[in-house]
Amino acid sequence: EEHLAMANMDDPYANDPRRHPVLVVRTKKPFNAETPTSLLVESFITPTDIFYVRHHFPVPDVDLSSGDYSLEVIGLDEKYSLNLNLDQLKTAYAPHSVTAALQCSGNRRSEMNRVKPTKGLEWGQGAMGNAVWKGARLRDVLLAVGITDSDENENWHVRFDGLDTDPTSAPYAISIPLTKAMDPRGDVILAYEMNGEPLTRDHGFPLRVVVPGTTGARWVKWLTRIEVSRNESDSHWQQCDYKSFNPSTDWDKVDFSTAPAIQEMPVTSVVCDPQNGEKVKLKDGKIKLRGYAWSGGGRGIVRVDVSVDLGKTWHVAELVDPVKLSKQWAWTRWQANLPVQTTGQETEVWVRAVDSGYNTQPEGMEHLWNMRGVLAVAYHKIKVSVEEN
Amino acid sequence: EEHLAMANMDDPYANDPRRHPVLVVRTKKPFNAETPTSLLVESFITPTDIFYVRHHFPVPDVDLSSGDYSLEVIGLDEKYSLNLNLDQLKTAYAPHSVTAALQCSGNRRSEMNRVKPTKGLEWGQGAMGNAVWKGARLRDVLLAVGITDSDENENWHVRFDGLDTDPTSAPYAISIPLTKAMDPRGDVILAYEMNGEPLTRDHGFPLRVVVPGTTGARWVKWLTRIEVSRNESDSHWQQCDYKSFNPSTDWDKVDFSTAPAIQEMPVTSVVCDPQNGEKVKLKDGKIKLRGYAWSGGGRGIVRVDVSVDLGKTWHVAELVDPVKLSKQWAWTRWQANLPVQTTGQETEVWVRAVDSGYNTQPEGMEHLWNMRGVLAVAYHKIKVSVEEN
Ligand SMILES: [Mo]
Ligand SMILES: [Mo]
Repeated sequence: EEHLAMANMDDPYANDPRRHPVLVVRTKKPFNAETPTSLLVESFITPTDIFYVRHHFPVPDVDLSSGDYSLEVIGLDEKYSLNLNLDQLKTAYAPHSVTAALQCSGNRRSEMNRVKPTKGLEWGQGAMGNAVWKGARLRDVLLAVGITDSDENENWHVRFDGLDTDPTSAPYAISIPLTKAMDPRGDVILAYEMNGEPLTRDHGFPLRVVVPGTTGARWVKWLTRIEVSRNESDSHWQQCDYKSFNPSTDWDKVDFSTAPAIQEMPVTSVVCDPQNGEKVKLKDGKIKLRGYAWSGGGRGIVRVDVSVDLGKTWHVAELVDPVKLSKQWAWTRWQANLPVQTTGQETEVWVRAVDSGYNTQPEGMEHLWNMRGVLAVAYHKIKVSVEEN
Repeated sequence: EEHLAMANMDDPYANDPRRHPVLVVRTKKPFNAETPTSLLVESFITPTDIFYVRHHFPVPDVDLSSGDYSLEVIGLDEKYSLNLNLDQLKTAYAPHSVTAALQCSGNRRSEMNRVKPTKGLEWGQGAMGNAVWKGARLRDVLLAVGITDSDENENWHVRFDGLDTDPTSAPYAISIPLTKAMDPRGDVILAYEMNGEPLTRDHGFPLRVVVPGTTGARWVKWLTRIEVSRNESDSHWQQCDYKSFNPSTDWDKVDFSTAPAIQEMPVTSVVCDPQNGEKVKLKDGKIKLRGYAWSGGGRGIVRVDVSVDLGKTWHVAELVDPVKLSKQWAWTRWQANLPVQTTGQETEVWVRAVDSGYNTQPEGMEHLWNMRGVLAVAYHKIKVSVEEN
């Protein structure tokens, strides 16, 4: 099937790269696929080839040897601008590495769809991963085009354009607050490496923005243009997507201008192993549970609570990966061995996390429901059949 | 009664100041009292004389004319230290004004106590207020004792001692992260004015720390000592109080070292008018609701949702006070005129808020319950009797 597609040159997706067969495909064109959660929990760093992929359009194919690729950087005044090829970016700015989780705004949407259908990809819990990113600090590049630390620019934005374009040739484009870009503790980088290798095409080769603590929609891939602006991006994706509303707001009456673009994401947690509907064997009267937890804004996970009795008793899970209270961009895996009384029947497992700002998750998806199905961050609740060993 | 107390010089509280009679007293010695919420919602700035008061000990009585008062500031190295009287602080450092809400960690505890009793003051929803604070930037003072913007000190703390002391003469003492103190956008000040007047004794005369976006326990009153330290404060209040645990953790088995000290507080919202149990008159088939909403960390309130049908329908409330997405330290009042079908019976009103990080509130207090009764930030739910006009 992929071979046939690649032969068809009328198909704008014909030149998309090959993908790892383990990815769970949600749509083929554009390609959108997630990692099985049973694999996600196996390693702190998610391998690149099984990392979730979220595309809006066909995948750009950049040939660095052609000399066609460049990054344009425009300060507020057009006089202060830069045009860099990848080698120039790498040599002019000190490389900086950041370990950060990337999460789609719509991760866990399928759980929200059980309340009522929403509009978006049917993501499970695998539209998230954790990687090491390396690149130039955006702060350094912006200083070079004359942007300063100043109260005057505190509401400005930095706009990013990708090489991927919609059918009208408009590039995928969004923006982030300039304060995040300029924050010496913000760790925003222009990344040319993921997990120690050059970016793959599916992850933005040759350059993507990494905005730690912030939703995936802002991490523009195939980055080709940066512009500092007094206003946020006026793109469709900034203005009329990746926003949330209350459950009583639907497509016929929504006013997108009333909600801010999602930047930082709220605290979330997931049971990765076992999965919903699985049969699990008791071991010494206990079941073993494993998963991940994460919060936006650099807030670390300070506690993960698990319950196997509908919240009557909460057990504190062990945090597998080290955490800091701030600048904690990476996720934290957790595990718990919990006693279960009842065997031969279904047990419901609940997990919820608390971040270093003591934010925690809402109990259910019902009141979080929004027409776009974003920010599905309620307790993760699964049912498993517990069997005697 | 107050007169008798003042005459009794064996009573350490005998010299406490007089208070406004409208304050709702929770304990007299030490004095702890909150503002009636019906008054809170009347003004963006809470008048000083009805602002909630939360003391641990008797109120210090500083006589500036005696020359006894000074502020000691110690950098990491004792060589770099300062000793300032109030005039010196005022003249050496540019004044900076900040409008910021102050909230007790235990605000709304009485709602949590309905699940199961906790240990703490029986606060309603009035252990919170909003004021204009003016003083010296702590950042400027710390720069003067040799503290720099550096990655090296990112886990350090700034310790504060008050003049109020426990029976063993240990001062009330806590600490905040140095990164918050040094953040040029953090707005931490050493305040000598509240609402345009010198601080009153009940609010820390002559000097208190204002830590916008952070819980009240960190806003040390009657400030007399600041010390930069590699570690957070080892005081009782830092280590063994103002922390939260899960509902299954109780006093007999708690390990305080496993939880971080509360700094930033999560998003909250309250219906101030009408109050729980009140009779309200329908006007054109609608009831009028008013309240406040706030979030920690400078996150602005982007939406307040109100429901009068147990969450089946959510109405977006009008935000009365202007909001920013970041550096929004002040609260936001909201109001809504909602149609109510059923009269002559009880109607339940729910409110919940969303902040600029898209954090929202958990539905109920049950799973937020913690032995100390802090961070009671679930939906505010009240019952009112709706009557035809
Ligand atoms: Mo996304
Ligand atoms: Mo407090």
